[in-house]
Amino acid sequence: MIGISKFVKKRGKKIGLPPGTPVFVGERKIEKAKITIIDYDEKQFQEKEGKTIEECFPFKDTPTVTWINVDGVHQVDIIEKIGKHFDLHPLILEDIMNTEQRPKMEDFERYIYIVLKMLYYDEKEHETKIEQVSLILGENFVISFQEMEGDIFDSIKERIRSGKGRIRKMGADYLGYALLDAIVDKYFMILEKLGGRIEELEDKLVNDPRPGTLHEIHRLKREMIFLRKSVWPLREVINGLERGESSLIQKSTLIYLKDVYDHTIQVIDTVETFRDMVSGMHDTYLSVISNRMNEVMKVLTIIATIFIPLTFIAGIYGMNFKFMPELEWRWAYFAVWFVVVVIAIFMVIFFKRKKWL
Amino acid sequence: MIGISKFVKKRGKKIGLPPGTPVFVGERKIEKAKITIIDYDEKQFQEKEGKTIEECFPFKDTPTVTWINVDGVHQVDIIEKIGKHFDLHPLILEDIMNTEQRPKMEDFERYIYIVLKMLYYDEKEHETKIEQVSLILGENFVISFQEMEGDIFDSIKERIRSGKGRIRKMGADYLGYALLDAIVDKYFMILEKLGGRIEELEDKLVNDPRPGTLHEIHRLKREMIFLRKSVWPLREVINGLERGESSLIQKSTLIYLKDVYDHTIQVIDTVETFRDMVSGMHDTYLSVISNRMNEVMKVLTIIATIFIPLTFIAGIYGMNFKFMPELEWRWAYFAVWFVVVVIAIFMVIFFKRKKWL
Amino acid sequence: MIGISKFVKKRGKKIGLPPGTPVFVGERKIEKAKITIIDYDEKQFQEKEGKTIEECFPFKDTPTVTWINVDGVHQVDIIEKIGKHFDLHPLILEDIMNTEQRPKMEDFERYIYIVLKMLYYDEKEHETKIEQVSLILGENFVISFQEMEGDIFDSIKERIRSGKGRIRKMGADYLGYALLDAIVDKYFMILEKLGGRIEELEDKLVNDPRPGTLHEIHRLKREMIFLRKSVWPLREVINGLERGESSLIQKSTLIYLKDVYDHTIQVIDTVETFRDMVSGMHDTYLSVISNRMNEVMKVLTIIATIFIPLTFIAGIYGMNFKFMPELEWRWAYFAVWFVVVVIAIFMVIFFKRKKWL
Amino acid sequence: MIGISKFVKKRGKKIGLPPGTPVFVGERKIEKAKITIIDYDEKQFQEKEGKTIEECFPFKDTPTVTWINVDGVHQVDIIEKIGKHFDLHPLILEDIMNTEQRPKMEDFERYIYIVLKMLYYDEKEHETKIEQVSLILGENFVISFQEMEGDIFDSIKERIRSGKGRIRKMGADYLGYALLDAIVDKYFMILEKLGGRIEELEDKLVNDPRPGTLHEIHRLKREMIFLRKSVWPLREVINGLERGESSLIQKSTLIYLKDVYDHTIQVIDTVETFRDMVSGMHDTYLSVISNRMNEVMKVLTIIATIFIPLTFIAGIYGMNFKFMPELEWRWAYFAVWFVVVVIAIFMVIFFKRKKWL
Amino acid sequence: MIGISKFVKKRGKKIGLPPGTPVFVGERKIEKAKITIIDYDEKQFQEKEGKTIEECFPFKDTPTVTWINVDGVHQVDIIEKIGKHFDLHPLILEDIMNTEQRPKMEDFERYIYIVLKMLYYDEKEHETKIEQVSLILGENFVISFQEMEGDIFDSIKERIRSGKGRIRKMGADYLGYALLDAIVDKYFMILEKLGGRIEELEDKLVNDPRPGTLHEIHRLKREMIFLRKSVWPLREVINGLERGESSLIQKSTLIYLKDVYDHTIQVIDTVETFRDMVSGMHDTYLSVISNRMNEVMKVLTIIATIFIPLTFIAGIYGMNFKFMPELEWRWAYFAVWFVVVVIAIFMVIFFKRKKWL
Repeated sequence: MIGISKFVKKRGKKIGLPPGTPVFVGERKIEKAKITIIDYDEKQFQEKEGKTIEECFPFKDTPTVTWINVDGVHQVDIIEKIGKHFDLHPLILEDIMNTEQRPKMEDFERYIYIVLKMLYYDEKEHETKIEQVSLILGENFVISFQEMEGDIFDSIKERIRSGKGRIRKMGADYLGYALLDAIVDKYFMILEKLGGRIEELEDKLVNDPRPGTLHEIHRLKREMIFLRKSVWPLREVINGLERGESSLIQKSTLIYLKDVYDHTIQVIDTVETFRDMVSGMHDTYLSVISNRMNEVMKVLTIIATIFIPLTFIAGIYGMNFKFMPELEWRWAYFAVWFVVVVIAIFMVIFFKRKKWL
Repeated sequence: MIGISKFVKKRGKKIGLPPGTPVFVGERKIEKAKITIIDYDEKQFQEKEGKTIEECFPFKDTPTVTWINVDGVHQVDIIEKIGKHFDLHPLILEDIMNTEQRPKMEDFERYIYIVLKMLYYDEKEHETKIEQVSLILGENFVISFQEMEGDIFDSIKERIRSGKGRIRKMGADYLGYALLDAIVDKYFMILEKLGGRIEELEDKLVNDPRPGTLHEIHRLKREMIFLRKSVWPLREVINGLERGESSLIQKSTLIYLKDVYDHTIQVIDTVETFRDMVSGMHDTYLSVISNRMNEVMKVLTIIATIFIPLTFIAGIYGMNFKFMPELEWRWAYFAVWFVVVVIAIFMVIFFKRKKWL
Repeated sequence: MIGISKFVKKRGKKIGLPPGTPVFVGERKIEKAKITIIDYDEKQFQEKEGKTIEECFPFKDTPTVTWINVDGVHQVDIIEKIGKHFDLHPLILEDIMNTEQRPKMEDFERYIYIVLKMLYYDEKEHETKIEQVSLILGENFVISFQEMEGDIFDSIKERIRSGKGRIRKMGADYLGYALLDAIVDKYFMILEKLGGRIEELEDKLVNDPRPGTLHEIHRLKREMIFLRKSVWPLREVINGLERGESSLIQKSTLIYLKDVYDHTIQVIDTVETFRDMVSGMHDTYLSVISNRMNEVMKVLTIIATIFIPLTFIAGIYGMNFKFMPELEWRWAYFAVWFVVVVIAIFMVIFFKRKKWL
Repeated sequence: MIGISKFVKKRGKKIGLPPGTPVFVGERKIEKAKITIIDYDEKQFQEKEGKTIEECFPFKDTPTVTWINVDGVHQVDIIEKIGKHFDLHPLILEDIMNTEQRPKMEDFERYIYIVLKMLYYDEKEHETKIEQVSLILGENFVISFQEMEGDIFDSIKERIRSGKGRIRKMGADYLGYALLDAIVDKYFMILEKLGGRIEELEDKLVNDPRPGTLHEIHRLKREMIFLRKSVWPLREVINGLERGESSLIQKSTLIYLKDVYDHTIQVIDTVETFRDMVSGMHDTYLSVISNRMNEVMKVLTIIATIFIPLTFIAGIYGMNFKFMPELEWRWAYFAVWFVVVVIAIFMVIFFKRKKWL
Repeated sequence: MIGISKFVKKRGKKIGLPPGTPVFVGERKIEKAKITIIDYDEKQFQEKEGKTIEECFPFKDTPTVTWINVDGVHQVDIIEKIGKHFDLHPLILEDIMNTEQRPKMEDFERYIYIVLKMLYYDEKEHETKIEQVSLILGENFVISFQEMEGDIFDSIKERIRSGKGRIRKMGADYLGYALLDAIVDKYFMILEKLGGRIEELEDKLVNDPRPGTLHEIHRLKREMIFLRKSVWPLREVINGLERGESSLIQKSTLIYLKDVYDHTIQVIDTVETFRDMVSGMHDTYLSVISNRMNEVMKVLTIIATIFIPLTFIAGIYGMNFKFMPELEWRWAYFAVWFVVVVIAIFMVIFFKRKKWL
C-alpha cells in the first residue's frame, strides 16, 4: 500500500531555520551526485561527464546551448556552487534540495525555475514511485536536477548527439520543452500500467470477487489521489510557460509547449476517467458481494424453511397420547412419508415459481 | 463492455521520438487511404476520386473552394505530402496520424486545425464506436481526414452536387461549418440510441430486475463517461471557432457556428441528464433488489416463526414422563391439533395485521 | 412516469438537410395555426383575428406597437411568410419550428430572438407538460409563437384592452417583458403544485411508506431534472436581455427585466431546494423501510430464539433411555412446564431490558 | 417540522396583475402598522410615534438624519403614501409588501433598496422563524420595514438616544450599516441555538439513538437548507454595498460594511460546517443503528445455533428403534447431558474466540 | 471529541454594543499580558521585557525595526493604549480581542492588519488546539498579539539576536514574513501528527476494526473540517499580501511571501488529500464490518442448515406409529447414524464447493 508518508511532507528538519537555507529534505536515492554537461549548437556538439561542478562553469558564457544535468540533489556544496555561479535566488536552492515541493513554475526574468514530479513504475516493488525534477531555464543554458540517475532523458541526449530532428537548430527554450515533453510522456506510460491493472481488476470483479479485491481497489484509489496531486499542478506549470509571457521562450517554441499542454490535459482527463471507473468498481464490488451473500442466505433459509414444517409433522406423531387413532392405522407411517415428500416438493415448486430459488 | 483500452492512450510507439514525427497511432481500420476532391463555386462543380495525392495539388491555387477528403490516416507518405504542399506544421501531421487526440482547435493564422471525435453505433457489435476526424480549414480549401470510409459527409456532397441550399454560394468556412454540423448531428443519433436503451433498461428495472441489469447499467454508465469525454472538449472547440477571432471565418458564418454551438450544448445537456438518470437507475436497482430479497427473507422467516412454537408443543407431548395427565385424556390429541391450528391462524392474522405478510 | 422521450431530441427528420430549412420537429398539438394581431399605442387600440398571415403585414410599418401572436408552429408556409416579411434569418425560422430547442436569446441588432420553455400542469394526465414559446422582439413589434392555444397571455391582452397599468404607454420592449413575466409567473404555479406533491409525499413517508412511495420519489426526481433543464438556461436568457446591451430595450424597461431576473433566480433557488429535499426523501425512505424490515426480522428472530431452547428441553425428555430418573418423578412433567415458562419469561425480560423488544 | 410552505412562494394572488402593483403577499403578523420616527444629528434628537404616516413627511427635507421605522407591511395605503412622498419606484413598493422576496440590493442612485431576511427563534414553537426586513437608504434618511414589532433595533435606538458611540456623529449610511449589523448579529444567535441542538443531538446519537433521532436530524438538515437560502444572497447584498460604488455611502462607512461582510462570511462558514456535521450525523446514525441491529441478530442467531445441534442429539435418542444399544446403558442419559453441556460450552468458547460474542 | 463549541462563535457578550468597542471574546488562557520589545537594525539590537505598555512607545519613532509582541489579549486597557498610540482603527482593536475571528488581511495604507489561526497539538489532551494571532505591520514596526505565551516565535527571536541569516538586514516587512512563515510551518507539524494518526487508524482498520474505530474516524473527519476552516482563508490572506499592492511590502520580500503562499497551498493540498483518505476510510470501515458480520451470519446459518434436516430425520423415527417396519430392523439405528453423517458430510462438501464456507 502506498504509505501515508507519501502525502505528509517531512519538514521537521527545516522548522526554525532561516528561509533560503538549502537543506536536503527527502530520501537519499543515490550515493554521489553525477554531473553531465552537453554543449551544442547547430554545428558543434560536446559531451562531458563532470568530475567537479566547476568544470561546467566555462560553458556558461559561450553562445552555444549548454545543458547541465545533475543526478542527486543531496550534496549542499554542489547546489550552492551552482547557485552562486548562475546567480540563483537562495529560495530556489532550498526548493531544489527539498524534494517535497509541489510542482510550480517561477519566472525570475533572467531564468525560469520549474519543479516537476516524474513518475516511474518500480517493477520490483510493484508500485508507482515519484521523483522530483527541477529545471532552470536560462538564456542559453538549461540545468536539470534529478534525484537519481534515470534513463528518462536518454532519448533527448541521443537526439542531440545524432543531430536528428530540430533540436540542434533550436535554442535552450526548445531543450527545456524537450525535457518537459519527456517527463509528460512518462505519465502516459504510468497511465497504461494503471489502465492494465484496472482492466485486470475488473475481470476479477466480475469473475471472482473477494475481500482482497476490495483492498486492491482501495490501493488503486489511493494511487489515483497520488497521481492527481502530481498532475493538476503540472498543468498550471505548463500553462504558465505556454502563455508566452517570458522573453526567454521564443514564439516558435510556444506551439510545442501548447502541445505538451494538450498532453497534460489528456493525462488529467484520463486520470479523472480512471477515478470515475475505480469509484464505480467500488460500488460494483459492494453490490456483487452483497448479492452473493444474499443468494447464499436465501438458499440456506429456504432449506430451513422446508424442513421446519416437516419436523413439526414428525413431532406431532412423536407425541405419546393414548388416543391417537392414526398411530394404529396400517399405512399411516407411509402416509406421513408421502405427505412429507409432497409438502417438500410443493414448497420447492412454489419457491421456484416465485423465482426465490 | 467498452474495454478500458478505449481510455488509455497507447502511445508506446511514440515515446522517445522527436516531436513532430508523424507516426500512425491507433487501430488500422482501412486498407488503403482513399482521396476524394470536390472543387466548386457558385457556378461550377467538379468531383474527382484521387488516385494519388498529387492530383489534388493543382486545386490549391484556384479561387474556387476545394474540399479534399482523405479516408484513412495510416499512410505516412500521403500525410507528409499534404503537409508539405499545404505547408502545415509538423505537429499537425503528427496529430492527424495519432488517432488518440483529445478534440481541440488550433489557429495557425493561415489555416485552422480542428480535431474531433465522430461517434457511430456499430449495429453488429452493439456498441458505440469512435473515429477521429481532422479538419484543416484554409482560405479557400478544406482538408478532412477520416479513419475509414463513412457516409457521414454524403449529404453534404449531395448538397454541393445539386447546388441546393446556400453551400455553393458560400466560402470554405461555410463548408467547414457544414462538416462540423454533420458530425454534431451524428451525436444526436447516438443519444437517441442511448435514450432508447435507457428506456428499455428502465422497463426491465421495474418489471424484472436481475444481476444482468446491473451489468447493463454499468455498461451504460461507462459509455456515458466515454461520451462525455468526447463531447466536453468539442464544446470548447466550437466555442473557439464561434468567437470569431480568426480572419478565415466570415461574419455571416459565425451565426451558423453559433447554431452548432447551441447543438453541442444541447448534446452536453442531454448527456448530463442521461448520466443523472443512469446514476438514479443504479440506486433504484439496488433498492429494488434489496427490497425483493428482504421480502423473501421475511416470508421465509415468518414460516419458520409459525412452526417453531408448534414444534415445541409437539415436543412437549413427546416427552416420556410417567405422570402426564393429558396423555390419558380421551380427546387430548385432537385438542392439541386444535390448539396448534388456532395458534397458527392467530399468528398469520397477527402478521397480516402488522402488515408483515 | 415522464418518458425518456422528453429528454431525447427527436431530430431524425432533420439529419442531412441543409441548415436553415424550417422543418417542424415535435408533436403536433393543434390543427390549424391561429393568428391574433393586437395593435396599440397610448391612445388607440385594435385587435384582430387574422385569417391569413398577410393581414398582419400592414401593421409592421405603423408607429404603434404591434403584437402578432401565432398559436401553432407546424405550418411551414406561415412561418416562412413571416420570416420573409420581417426579414428574419433562416436559422430562426428553423428554430421556431423545432420545438426541441434549448432556451436561448440571440440579438440580431434589428430584432432579438428568444426561445423559452413554458410549463403547465396537465390536470388530466397528472404531469407537468412543456411547450415552446418563441418571441421576436423588434423596434415596434413583438411576434410570439406558441405550440397551441393557451390562456397564459390572456391577462396581458386584458391589460392592453383596458389600458390599465403602464403597458399602453410603453413600447414593444415592455410588451416583450410582460410576456416573459407571464411565462416566469407560470413557473411559480408549477412550483406550488410540486411543493404540494412533495409535502403529500413526505406525509406518506412518515406515516405509511411503501414501494409505491419510492416510485413516486423517483418520478418527482425526474420532474425536477426536467424542470432544471428548462430553468437554468432561462436565467441566462433573461440575464442576456437585462444587461442592456441591445438598443431595442429602453433603459426604463431594464429595471423590469431585472425584476423578472430576480424571479428566475427565485425559481432556480426553489428548484434546487426541492431537489435537495427529494434527494433527502429518498434516503429517508430507504432508512425507514430498512428500519421497519429490521424490526420485523428482529421480532421474528426473537420468537424463534425463545422457542428453540424450549424445544431442546422437550426433546431431552422425549428420549427413550431406560434409566432417566426424572421420568419416574411424580411432578416432573409439571416441573418441566414450570421451567419452560420461567425460561421464556426470563428471556422476554432480558430482551426487554436490552431494548431488543 | 419546517413545512414545505416555507419554501414555496405563494404568489397565487399576484398572477396576472400588472407589475408594480403593491399587493400584500404573506402571513399577516400584526394588526395595524406602527410607525416610529427618530430624527437626530450630533446635537439634537427627536423621537416620535407616528399616528399617521403623514407625520413623518416634514422630516424628509431637514438636514438631520431621519429614521422611519414601519412595523407591519400589509397596509397598502401606508406603503403607497411613503412611495409617493419619497418618490420610490413602484416595483420597490411591490417588493416591500411581498414578503417572499429573495434578499437583494438595488441601487436607484437617489436611494438604495435592500431586502433582507431576519431570523429569530420562536421559543414557544421551537423553530426558527423568518421575517422580511426592507431598508431604503437615502441621502439623509433611512426607512425600515418590518413584518411585525420586534426588539432587534432597540439597542440602536438606545444608542441614538444616549448619544453613545459614533452613531450620532455619522450620517444615514452609518445608520443603515448599524441596522444591517443588528440583523447579522441575530444570525449568530440562531447559529448558537442550532449549535446547541446539534451538540445535544450528537450526545443522543452516541448514547441512545432511536428512530426519533433520525427525524430530528432530518429536521435540522432542513433548517440548514432554509438558513443557507437566507444567508447566501445576504452575502451578495452586503458585498454589493461594500464595494463602494454608490455615492450615498461615505468612505468612512465602507470599513464598517467590510466588517459586516466578514461577519456574513463567518455565518456562511458556520452554516456550511454545520451542514457537513449534520450530514455526517446522518451517516453515523445509520451505521450506529445498523451495527446495533447486527449485534442483536448475531446474538440471537448464536443462541439458535447452539441449541439446534443439541436438539438434534435429543432427537436421535427420541427415536423408537428396537435396537438402540445406548438406550439400555445405565449412564447413557447422564452421558447425553454431559455431551450436550460440553458441546454448548465448546461452542460458546469457540464463538468468544472468534470474537463473535 | 472536538466540541461543537469550536465552531459556534460565542458572541453573546457583544450583541447590542456599538461596533468598534473592544470586548474580550474567548477563553482566557493567561493571567496577565506579557509584553516583549525587540528593536534592531543591521548594526544594533535591543531586547526588553516591557512592564507597562508605555515602555514600548519610544521605539515607535526610531528608524530601527521594532517588534512588539503581546502575549494575552484579554486586557482592554493595554489594547486600547496600543490602539491610541499607533493610531489603529477601533474595529481592529475589537478584532484583536475577539478571538473568534476568521483569518483575514486588511490594508489600512499606513499599516496592514492580519489575523491568523495558529494550530498546536496539545499532547496532554490529545487534540489540536487553536490560537488566534494578530499582526500589525507598519512602516518600521510589527506588533504581534498571541492569546498566550508560546515558543512559536522563539527561533525568529534567536535569529535576530544572533544576526544569522538576512533578517537583521531587512525591514519590518521581512519580519512580518518571518512570523507568517513560522505560523505556516506549524501547520506542517500538525499535518505530520494527523498523518501519523491516519496511518495508525488504517492499520487498525485492516487488522482489528471495531466500533471505536468508527468513532475515531469521525473525530478525524471533524478535525479535518476544523483544519480546513483555518487553512482556506489563510490562503486568501497570504495571497492578498503577496500580490504586492501595499507599499509597505518591498519587492524583495514578495518572493519570500510567494514561498509562504506555496507552503499554504501545499498545506491545503495535504488537508484535502487527508479528507479524501478519511472519507475512504469510513467507507472501508463500513464494508469491512459488514463483510465480517455477513461472514458470521453465514457460518451460523450454515450450521443451522446442516442440523435442521438431520433433526427432521431423527424426528421421523421418533414417531409412535404401530407399523413402522424400519423400527424393527436390526441395524436400522446404525443406518440412521450413517445416513445422518453422510448427509452432513455431503452438505459440508457442497457448501465448500460453492465457496460458502
